[in-house]
Amino acid sequence: MELLRNTLAKITGLNKEAMSKSRIRIDHLIKPIGSLGQLENLAVQVSGITGELFPDLSNKAIIVMAADNGVCEEGVAAAPQVVTKIQTINIANGVSGLGPLARMSGAELVVVDIGIMSEVNHHNVINRKVRHGTYNIAKGPAMAYDEAIKAIETGIEITENEIKKGRRLIGTGEMGIGNTTSSTALLSVLTGIDPIKITGVGANLPLDKLAMKVRVIRQAISINRPDSNDPIDALAKVGGFDLAGMTGIILACAANKVPCVIDGYISTISAILACQLSPLCKDYIISSHLSLEKGAKVAIDFLGLKPILYLDMRLGEGSGAALAFQIVESAVLINRDMLTFEESGIDMV
Amino acid sequence: MELLRNTLAKITGLNKEAMSKSRIRIDHLIKPIGSLGQLENLAVQVSGITGELFPDLSNKAIIVMAADNGVCEEGVAAAPQVVTKIQTINIANGVSGLGPLARMSGAELVVVDIGIMSEVNHHNVINRKVRHGTYNIAKGPAMAYDEAIKAIETGIEITENEIKKGRRLIGTGEMGIGNTTSSTALLSVLTGIDPIKITGVGANLPLDKLAMKVRVIRQAISINRPDSNDPIDALAKVGGFDLAGMTGIILACAANKVPCVIDGYISTISAILACQLSPLCKDYIISSHLSLEKGAKVAIDFLGLKPILYLDMRLGEGSGAALAFQIVESAVLINRDMLTFEESGIDMV
Repeated sequence: MELLRNTLAKITGLNKEAMSKSRIRIDHLIKPIGSLGQLENLAVQVSGITGELFPDLSNKAIIVMAADNGVCEEGVAAAPQVVTKIQTINIANGVSGLGPLARMSGAELVVVDIGIMSEVNHHNVINRKVRHGTYNIAKGPAMAYDEAIKAIETGIEITENEIKKGRRLIGTGEMGIGNTTSSTALLSVLTGIDPIKITGVGANLPLDKLAMKVRVIRQAISINRPDSNDPIDALAKVGGFDLAGMTGIILACAANKVPCVIDGYISTISAILACQLSPLCKDYIISSHLSLEKGAKVAIDFLGLKPILYLDMRLGEGSGAALAFQIVESAVLINRDMLTFEESGIDMV
Repeated sequence: MELLRNTLAKITGLNKEAMSKSRIRIDHLIKPIGSLGQLENLAVQVSGITGELFPDLSNKAIIVMAADNGVCEEGVAAAPQVVTKIQTINIANGVSGLGPLARMSGAELVVVDIGIMSEVNHHNVINRKVRHGTYNIAKGPAMAYDEAIKAIETGIEITENEIKKGRRLIGTGEMGIGNTTSSTALLSVLTGIDPIKITGVGANLPLDKLAMKVRVIRQAISINRPDSNDPIDALAKVGGFDLAGMTGIILACAANKVPCVIDGYISTISAILACQLSPLCKDYIISSHLSLEKGAKVAIDFLGLKPILYLDMRLGEGSGAALAFQIVESAVLINRDMLTFEESGIDMV
């Protein structure tokens, strides 16, 4: 609890002076004012986060939190539970969807086993298991309250370690069969929206099983009675270790003034949790893409952010975050490498 | 006319066998089917264009067509006409908006003076002037019919020269004060939509001058009576050399089976012209982004393509194309670098 409390206490507002300097420079670059749209806003936000006019974001990492969900025994996922472990190893080997996208944007992968059911022995997977998977939320709480805190703090520790290594841009990723079920349960609790309106097919659950998935989510909420005013209670009762770990990543980024690019649906739920723990957190988050998963639009609107990419992706792993890294870096380079009217020695108007 | 005729004759449909192989592989990659959304479609399209499963697109260029528009004397642009030349030099020096975005995606810039009013002496600007600017379309045709053909053929020659040098991915860009006026006139002619519905502020024309811009476009159309069934006639009467040059780029890409990433509003009008000259052309075009310019949505819908990025950009130059290069390359790398279920030796379902 100590680390979480200290991390929350460290989170402050953005550097307004740096943002103002960034915006003024952008408005003086040799282009019509406003004509680079969202790229301009991204550059200003990153200046506000880092306090620098020309931050160098080239040292980047995607942190992938992998964990199992006990609720899989209800049949809510199309893939068998062992796929969490298999796919975590594939991610660590760089051969899953995330691999090529991370390499393309020059990002390192940091893969964390924060609660996979079985043992994972792989040189690129960090063993930080909080437990061997959550309990089945349809029958009781996913984890104890102090386990939720431990999982968040694990995310904070991993992230601060990466920041110490020099990472200047961090993305969130996850792997966990069944995690659209826990995410949707959390989204329902935190927004008050009925699960039927936000429950999607995740990793291609057959449509005829969707009603059952909704029932399982409703049952998880009615049995556990999560406190919607206490994000840690909600997380402990219907969440997962992957969600908790990513919440820790986001909090640590905000506390250390590092821009955090969140991936899709699951990551957005973690971002909502982080912002409920510290509303100032939101300014440090960049939403990479709008997932095609059914609840994603509700989630991102509730969080109050505008995604960068709309590519109908719904893979997770951090794939959207890796892709958006390229756009975020481009935005910062615009401000550094374009000339101002003054610098170019011309007076256009 | 010979080169244009030969180029049109060379354009054939996509390689269906390569597309099928590409789609089959994508559907066997270790991810839920369809979960990489538009990236999957991009990879299949690029396979169809190049005929290759794993095309190497790393040798890339943005070709920028720069020209002046006589219609500027009507006061339709906020910036003085000399800015076309100044900004063309800035583009060639890599210090405009396009520069950092092109460097970020590893693309070379090919800057062509296809009709700037005054002389441009710069080692990175290719002098292929068709004439020193178009005539004022509010008073008569922009150019002669054979000049329109010459400008298209100039675009073809420049592009084929780049392809001979090894370019495997080409983007369109332009610079020309006043070119939203000529583009909107063309869009109105080709779609039959009244200019008032598609005329925007371009590079920040003051709002109180917008009605005047609409009147100028209407006058250009009523005086010149362009033939909406003859794209070259329409281009000659109310278009511009930059638009014609980009039409040539797109046709040459299609004829030589090189994916062509079009930039925003102005480029989309050139793409419509290219597709009217050869409907098969469309399959070789990738729309980079939806410009914020008023007529852009109408134009891209008329062309029938879905843009990759929605970033409220409206700079032109090829800036959106350069940014989208990264996404297109990422899409291709997904198919090359991810494992299939078979290759990974696992059976997930």
